[in-house]
Amino acid sequence: MTAATSASHTNDLIEQKLEQLPAILNEKAIDVWLVFVRESETLHDPTLDTLVGANVTWQSAFLFNTKGQRIAIVGSLDVARIERTGHFTQVIGYGEGIGNDLRRILGDLDPPSLALNYSTETELADGLTHGMYLLLQRLLEGTPYVARAVSSQPIVAALRGRKSAFEIAQIRTACTITQEIFDAVTPKLAVGLTEQDVAQLLRAEMDARKLPPAWDPNHCPAVFTGPDSAGAHADPTDTPIEPGHVMNVDMGVKVGGYCSDMQRTWYFLKPGETSAPAAVVRGFETIVEAIEAAGRMLKPGVLGHEIDAVARGLITGKGYPEYNHGLGHQVGQAAHDGIGLLCPQWERYGERALLPVEVGQVYTIEPRLPIEGHGIATMEEIVVVTDRGCEYLSEPQKEIYLVPELVS
Amino acid sequence: MTAATSASHTNDLIEQKLEQLPAILNEKAIDVWLVFVRESETLHDPTLDTLVGANVTWQSAFLFNTKGQRIAIVGSLDVARIERTGHFTQVIGYGEGIGNDLRRILGDLDPPSLALNYSTETELADGLTHGMYLLLQRLLEGTPYVARAVSSQPIVAALRGRKSAFEIAQIRTACTITQEIFDAVTPKLAVGLTEQDVAQLLRAEMDARKLPPAWDPNHCPAVFTGPDSAGAHADPTDTPIEPGHVMNVDMGVKVGGYCSDMQRTWYFLKPGETSAPAAVVRGFETIVEAIEAAGRMLKPGVLGHEIDAVARGLITGKGYPEYNHGLGHQVGQAAHDGIGLLCPQWERYGERALLPVEVGQVYTIEPRLPIEGHGIATMEEIVVVTDRGCEYLSEPQKEIYLVPELVS
Repeated sequence: MTAATSASHTNDLIEQKLEQLPAILNEKAIDVWLVFVRESETLHDPTLDTLVGANVTWQSAFLFNTKGQRIAIVGSLDVARIERTGHFTQVIGYGEGIGNDLRRILGDLDPPSLALNYSTETELADGLTHGMYLLLQRLLEGTPYVARAVSSQPIVAALRGRKSAFEIAQIRTACTITQEIFDAVTPKLAVGLTEQDVAQLLRAEMDARKLPPAWDPNHCPAVFTGPDSAGAHADPTDTPIEPGHVMNVDMGVKVGGYCSDMQRTWYFLKPGETSAPAAVVRGFETIVEAIEAAGRMLKPGVLGHEIDAVARGLITGKGYPEYNHGLGHQVGQAAHDGIGLLCPQWERYGERALLPVEVGQVYTIEPRLPIEGHGIATMEEIVVVTDRGCEYLSEPQKEIYLVPELVS
Repeated sequence: MTAATSASHTNDLIEQKLEQLPAILNEKAIDVWLVFVRESETLHDPTLDTLVGANVTWQSAFLFNTKGQRIAIVGSLDVARIERTGHFTQVIGYGEGIGNDLRRILGDLDPPSLALNYSTETELADGLTHGMYLLLQRLLEGTPYVARAVSSQPIVAALRGRKSAFEIAQIRTACTITQEIFDAVTPKLAVGLTEQDVAQLLRAEMDARKLPPAWDPNHCPAVFTGPDSAGAHADPTDTPIEPGHVMNVDMGVKVGGYCSDMQRTWYFLKPGETSAPAAVVRGFETIVEAIEAAGRMLKPGVLGHEIDAVARGLITGKGYPEYNHGLGHQVGQAAHDGIGLLCPQWERYGERALLPVEVGQVYTIEPRLPIEGHGIATMEEIVVVTDRGCEYLSEPQKEIYLVPELVS
């Protein structure tokens, strides 16, 4: 195996994941994993960040097998860049077309079972475009390999889902800093600020720590105030906070390549109020209860939809409408990481609801409910699955944050 | 048609392109274009930047027809964000799954011909992943639509390739500023600087103008010095410039959403030299000649590979090896834009070599040759195709830039 020529942080993370790979291929009974991509700056297969750490221009094939061989076939102009990653045992450069080298290498390896980088269930394992699939069929015509190919989704699920101690420590740090940012901004909040103003305060704290947002900066942080706030994925608006509003923020930061993803809920006191009204407290406490119940259920072997059902049932049992999303997703190098989800068996979640929880996975727990006339109550906590259950990486919010009326 | 709710620059560009679309669909005999995507922040279909201007989370369908209808079917949490773009005549939000709404809308439109967002030839028209294609087959089982579907590549080729006067003006400005940056850095160059040092000088000029690089900042600018310089896509290294080196830079900036992409060549004089040696001058002038010859040939209707052959033949005719890439690509909102290429009929270029040049396309012309013992001569100019031929948007480099020996 070529020694890593760059000792960069990212390279180390990739090398750690690549070292996990042969055992995972064995476990999944896959002899060779073929990742087929092109122009990856424009249309970026997320597995490249886990397996390669560099982009390619022309059609490129990355092959990994159970013996630890890692073979790259790339355009001649990309050879130097791929060699420099230090991750590959062989880097082959081609000029006019990838076909000859790809047929030769696959013929040499002659894998009885082959996985390809596509997945019906998740974009994280679905970097092979349909055009590239058709092209691969054309390039490998007369060979048995495309017919043998199966989705590499189970490999990606294991590789991204099972976090090392190092990865867990990074996510814990990202959670701690996110809570620090919430705590730093809370005293600056006041009625009259708009959603955009609040986002700006949060962004300034991220910038001061030189930490990038965990997802698209247009809606990280996302801020929602009041009963008419938009859906959870819209950008902050110029809606001002009013007395009696419940406000929530959805935000994460990236620390050393790993993400947090947390939500918190605030209440803005009306003149004369010293605490939130009963309806707000009841909504908030239902979310706390739902998170705690789901956390208690979250153990290796339980299926994703079973965890979701606990929180969903608790919320609807108290007369609230059910939230129209899953209870939680995995977190890692991306804010939405891994494949197994804590979610109901809805069409759009496909098989992801049916996967068992595994040790080392990191999940969010993020139920939601509307409090009529006030806004949305929602918290999002982050937990890691252990042998015996789960452990919180975020410090759970147990009391609603109260923002006093400004006394002028 | 919904009025645009945001008058932002990007939205205007998208609206301009969307207004071109019905005529292009008619021309290509396509009744409905279906763009099917999910989690577009992670795996981003480039057509979304041309057609939508926002990302989506769950499986989403964007449908465009010859009558100017623009229908979005997206997850309920994405509805507000998509409505806010102002580009859609109808935005449908779904909860549990996209299937029912998608089958209903397609059934209502019942298009005799349907295009889908995949392409064997280019990533720019290939945002439909193979997993999403399989999912679409499953969702539309029992309907005739997937069987009717063809690649939307010809639509994307026309939409991205045919530049408006506004788009051409933006690219011209980007070229002018890129040349300004080259001219500002030239007096600061000296033997002993590394490739990384030169990249840093160029980056500082971009930063001072608050302009982002036109592609991945790790290799925009790309800098290559001397006879052992790496391939054209590697990042700048710590190789120092030596007397007698030929150095070249590949760089572009983004101005108002549009890219430049230019290369320039320098010679570092040895002690006592006042001009470049004959071999260097001959190599440089061969590149100038090749560009001029290709530019004269570049007219509507000529095929991409015919233009490439002119420059390639001129260079090999003078005894230099042929360059191992295409002569030129289109430029636009991405540095590699459009679909038609000026390139040889090599396997990896597929049909792209066979497309005719059209009025309004913007191409680079970038031949390359090695000058033994010195480095690589390469310039990259940018031209727009007009009725009668082509017009340069960059000011072509006609003399090699000479860097004098430092006199201490």
